[in-house]
Amino acid sequence: MNQKIRAIILGASGYTGAELLRLLLLHPHLEIAGLSAERNAGHPIAEVFPHLAIYNLPPLVHIDELNFSNADLVFCALPHGTTQAVIAGLPKHLRVVDLSADFRLRDPKLYAQWYGHAHQAIVLQNEAVYGLTEFHRAEIKTARLVANPGCYPTASSLPLIPLLQNKLIETDNIIIDAKSGVSGAGRAVKQNLLYPEVTGGISAYGVANHRHTPEIEQILSDASGKSIHITFTPHLIPMSRGMMSTIYTRVRSGKTVADVRAALHGAYDAEPFVHVLPDGRLPATHNVAASNHCHIAVVPGAVAGQVILLSVIDNLVKGASGQAIQNMNLMYGFDETMALMQAAVFP
Amino acid sequence: MNQKIRAIILGASGYTGAELLRLLLLHPHLEIAGLSAERNAGHPIAEVFPHLAIYNLPPLVHIDELNFSNADLVFCALPHGTTQAVIAGLPKHLRVVDLSADFRLRDPKLYAQWYGHAHQAIVLQNEAVYGLTEFHRAEIKTARLVANPGCYPTASSLPLIPLLQNKLIETDNIIIDAKSGVSGAGRAVKQNLLYPEVTGGISAYGVANHRHTPEIEQILSDASGKSIHITFTPHLIPMSRGMMSTIYTRVRSGKTVADVRAALHGAYDAEPFVHVLPDGRLPATHNVAASNHCHIAVVPGAVAGQVILLSVIDNLVKGASGQAIQNMNLMYGFDETMALMQAAVFP
Amino acid sequence: MNQKIRAIILGASGYTGAELLRLLLLHPHLEIAGLSAERNAGHPIAEVFPHLAIYNLPPLVHIDELNFSNADLVFCALPHGTTQAVIAGLPKHLRVVDLSADFRLRDPKLYAQWYGHAHQAIVLQNEAVYGLTEFHRAEIKTARLVANPGCYPTASSLPLIPLLQNKLIETDNIIIDAKSGVSGAGRAVKQNLLYPEVTGGISAYGVANHRHTPEIEQILSDASGKSIHITFTPHLIPMSRGMMSTIYTRVRSGKTVADVRAALHGAYDAEPFVHVLPDGRLPATHNVAASNHCHIAVVPGAVAGQVILLSVIDNLVKGASGQAIQNMNLMYGFDETMALMQAAVFP
Amino acid sequence: MNQKIRAIILGASGYTGAELLRLLLLHPHLEIAGLSAERNAGHPIAEVFPHLAIYNLPPLVHIDELNFSNADLVFCALPHGTTQAVIAGLPKHLRVVDLSADFRLRDPKLYAQWYGHAHQAIVLQNEAVYGLTEFHRAEIKTARLVANPGCYPTASSLPLIPLLQNKLIETDNIIIDAKSGVSGAGRAVKQNLLYPEVTGGISAYGVANHRHTPEIEQILSDASGKSIHITFTPHLIPMSRGMMSTIYTRVRSGKTVADVRAALHGAYDAEPFVHVLPDGRLPATHNVAASNHCHIAVVPGAVAGQVILLSVIDNLVKGASGQAIQNMNLMYGFDETMALMQAAVFP
Repeated sequence: MNQKIRAIILGASGYTGAELLRLLLLHPHLEIAGLSAERNAGHPIAEVFPHLAIYNLPPLVHIDELNFSNADLVFCALPHGTTQAVIAGLPKHLRVVDLSADFRLRDPKLYAQWYGHAHQAIVLQNEAVYGLTEFHRAEIKTARLVANPGCYPTASSLPLIPLLQNKLIETDNIIIDAKSGVSGAGRAVKQNLLYPEVTGGISAYGVANHRHTPEIEQILSDASGKSIHITFTPHLIPMSRGMMSTIYTRVRSGKTVADVRAALHGAYDAEPFVHVLPDGRLPATHNVAASNHCHIAVVPGAVAGQVILLSVIDNLVKGASGQAIQNMNLMYGFDETMALMQAAVFP
Repeated sequence: MNQKIRAIILGASGYTGAELLRLLLLHPHLEIAGLSAERNAGHPIAEVFPHLAIYNLPPLVHIDELNFSNADLVFCALPHGTTQAVIAGLPKHLRVVDLSADFRLRDPKLYAQWYGHAHQAIVLQNEAVYGLTEFHRAEIKTARLVANPGCYPTASSLPLIPLLQNKLIETDNIIIDAKSGVSGAGRAVKQNLLYPEVTGGISAYGVANHRHTPEIEQILSDASGKSIHITFTPHLIPMSRGMMSTIYTRVRSGKTVADVRAALHGAYDAEPFVHVLPDGRLPATHNVAASNHCHIAVVPGAVAGQVILLSVIDNLVKGASGQAIQNMNLMYGFDETMALMQAAVFP
Repeated sequence: MNQKIRAIILGASGYTGAELLRLLLLHPHLEIAGLSAERNAGHPIAEVFPHLAIYNLPPLVHIDELNFSNADLVFCALPHGTTQAVIAGLPKHLRVVDLSADFRLRDPKLYAQWYGHAHQAIVLQNEAVYGLTEFHRAEIKTARLVANPGCYPTASSLPLIPLLQNKLIETDNIIIDAKSGVSGAGRAVKQNLLYPEVTGGISAYGVANHRHTPEIEQILSDASGKSIHITFTPHLIPMSRGMMSTIYTRVRSGKTVADVRAALHGAYDAEPFVHVLPDGRLPATHNVAASNHCHIAVVPGAVAGQVILLSVIDNLVKGASGQAIQNMNLMYGFDETMALMQAAVFP
Repeated sequence: MNQKIRAIILGASGYTGAELLRLLLLHPHLEIAGLSAERNAGHPIAEVFPHLAIYNLPPLVHIDELNFSNADLVFCALPHGTTQAVIAGLPKHLRVVDLSADFRLRDPKLYAQWYGHAHQAIVLQNEAVYGLTEFHRAEIKTARLVANPGCYPTASSLPLIPLLQNKLIETDNIIIDAKSGVSGAGRAVKQNLLYPEVTGGISAYGVANHRHTPEIEQILSDASGKSIHITFTPHLIPMSRGMMSTIYTRVRSGKTVADVRAALHGAYDAEPFVHVLPDGRLPATHNVAASNHCHIAVVPGAVAGQVILLSVIDNLVKGASGQAIQNMNLMYGFDETMALMQAAVFP
């Protein structure tokens, strides 16, 4: 390949923007053609991301100062709600990987219910392909607009999809107890995200009403072929990166934990990034930190029929920027793992 | 009261020992009569706990160097398994608050099953009073030997007992997803507890086989009047102190979340240390750090009938040393809150 | 004493406000008569400080809604620069302990130079007594307005004052390399104080131009009787609380490290809160966490004549709210240690 | 290049071993031919480093089970003191990069003085080339045995060498106040490295007697052409990775801060990994985390003649395994930056 893909990142001054840059700088077939920011427009990259100052990156500018005509691709890392209008206004030659939640929910009514306003770009929403890579490769390859999954939906659905597809578990009482690092909240400046408010403590938030709930339910309903409602409880953990989902399910009558384990191995043993741990090993976010990997464990519960699934990802990588690049690789015919094959950073 | 109670701490060089000392130094009617340690015997307290060096404390000695005849009370903070023989060998005039797990399980078979060896002091086990203060005041007042509850059992059972006593929830599928700070593992020197192994990450451990499971089941079975088995999943959180239990239950047919809330308020509104949060407030371990308080929240699940209970304690205080002092206060007729009424340390 | 002192806290919703409340709730002779806040006025205390919700505290109101006529004392925990006008406008029957920097610098020119604007209350500045308790007890007892010292000045000057008073060290090249926890920056919502920006890393800031520099120089110049200029380098450490000053000095010709050590013991051995560590023990902020204590160590340098002094405090206690209460105790004739004699919280 | 270099790692189960593996897995011209461990010999890599379980790595074996005849290169990551005998016993066809301190001090007397025993391999010590890459490229290229620098010596000497070579600063009072993350202590299981002992606090250790002192002095003396003694104070910071040196020096009469800045730019502007920050930017360890970069800042002190230098590295990368690979690249004629050109991981 002689020609490099020219990519623009919208909302480059947030954490997912930084992570896109860190990973894309390793990509041999892509170059950064433009970077936009809101508050930080006009600030040198060295001020916004001192760790990237040594690279030859375009300046952070307002979105309307960007030259889209010379670009092939846009990574959109803008806040939820504002993204749909921006993408609707982009030139149509551009392919888009959107990291916001704006195009993830297929049903506009569901979107309106959870986000409190009508969707602004329903035609695009119909066009958007949901980018949970392992399950949508064919559509992603040809998609113009990919809705990159949320971090909680990625961590929570990867262990469940094969079980639902194979009708191994009950669908009426799936409980997902999730734990996230702080970077999942983005770089927004809020009191509850200050260091002293977070360090050394754990808190629950959005219990039974977090906006990732309908996204998870959409994935699980697609996998099972019927409407599924879940119990979803997120917690904030004093760590920058990392996400764990602890999932409580029951096998269906006649099914066993061995069936569950077999289904997961069947689904993932050939995958480069999703790994089913051998019996007896439990996941830790450390083991996937700064990597695109997902680790999944299966543990039989003490109560008959109960199966506990545990999965870990790095919320900024497989839960955001890494999966976005994985999807981009598919869209342009690159090896899917390109720029993503580093081991986790430990310790 | 003119005479001070003279207390000995066995196993004073661990974290629960340090916490006993920190709190007892605030107690007007108790003096420290002796301190034992194993590896640290002979070391000055200034080396083992530099923050306590300014106090006039007895030296750390081997247990057989202690003079028990001049003491009234023993706090026993020794490792599980070794405690029962030690307590069996103590002079009988001593009252004992034991912080280990050795006397918590009433059923010797259950003990043998979970701890891998026969109990060494079955007569004492029969005598022991389980020290979940809010529910056993009468027996604790006259007890000679109090088995101080574990941290997970305390955090997990306080929200559940009133619901089970009032037959408000189903008993066949109680799920407790628990999160603990690292001090819960004690001061034992293990690779998996080193700073770089813990900081910035979360891991699960003891899934479906943690030793606190039968202790929780014993409490819940007592409260409900029938045998209960639970699903219990502990996680290690990068924080020194603090514990959260996120509990998933279902109300029984005809019962409501309002009934659940009312039962908790009925049980705890007069309690000094257990607080049911108003609707909409979620607990955080920060809000109970270094205090003897427990905060409990009730959240209706998104799925019909589901109720999510969340509780937080400081594992070293209400989950160990604070509750031990609360019990001691009862045993000697002191105000139950004596030496324990500090607000949480935040930030 | 029958009558309780009635205290108002201005700026109660910040970290020093929280710490004043935590400690004052332990004080037998003081009651909280009013609390003011800016952004948080009107919000219930349970929202601003959930850990204090169980106490019967006055509501957070705007300062002009407070009834000062019924109060005896004001703790002023407002931001630097805004405080002087506020205090100038208070009724004159009130005694004031001011935790801001507004009245710490005696020289109005120096104030204007470092804070960028003329001082607004020069008469009050003349009246203000500098509240480094151990060295100004007599004036503090009768003061109407106490300028409570900064955290860096407290940690840095306590080891140096006795050496300068006794002319033991050279004064032309004192270097203070200081390390602070994040709560020292207050609860202001800034991007660089977000959890992911701070955790797991160290940074320097304000090198050679931090505003605590002239305050430290004023103290040291007073102690030595001549004008002293220092090198002061603060660093931000990933911890909520705690401060360490590592101080590099040289003994004067004919003086020794033993002289240094003797001077410190002479100054502090009778003090309740300042402790000179025995030879060989090094300080750690853990050993003073959540306490009003200061630990000081003396280490001979490897280079002839060099002496390294290390001191630790909790920036929110001895470095702010604790010392404020210590001063208040003096002002009202209470035991100086009242409400302040808890051991450090460890772990 | 068709043939891959075959490398063995001795002491692969520690933190520098993990970091060597993480980075070497990115190297296109090197393969891992063997891994040794002590306590962990025989354990699967998945147990020792779960994050590396997905790679096809050799088993961890005792050193005497390794087949050295089929290898080209040894990275030696064994503890100080034990390394010299091991390397002396290796087949002579092997080239060695030693990450221990055993071959860093040229003077056997100095070694004996600081390490408490006579050096066991003095002939090898004479042969060893000191591997501070930026200053010893010629010797490293042809070396058989490279003594890879310590983390503190790397962070501390890079800012100083150009100043000493150009005789810009006084040499009699260089003060290095250093701060290190916990991984610098290795994976040894010690009480003072447990999570609760470290998190949320800072401590000083090895003040004026740390073993990296003579190594730093050797480098600085070489650079200046005369014997230099320094003041070196290390501190333990609650972070896994990262190191900062804050260095206090004085310019020589007639020299200026501008001269200092110019010398550093002259030395490093063409370097791939050492970066002199523009005026006004201060270093933070976050900006080099998990990377081989070093950032250096120059700040004029408030006292005349004083210059403050600040430098940051990742102690496990430029301070250990990254620099080892940088040296290996030189030894084998690879591009010096191979496998090392990732941006820092932030947040």
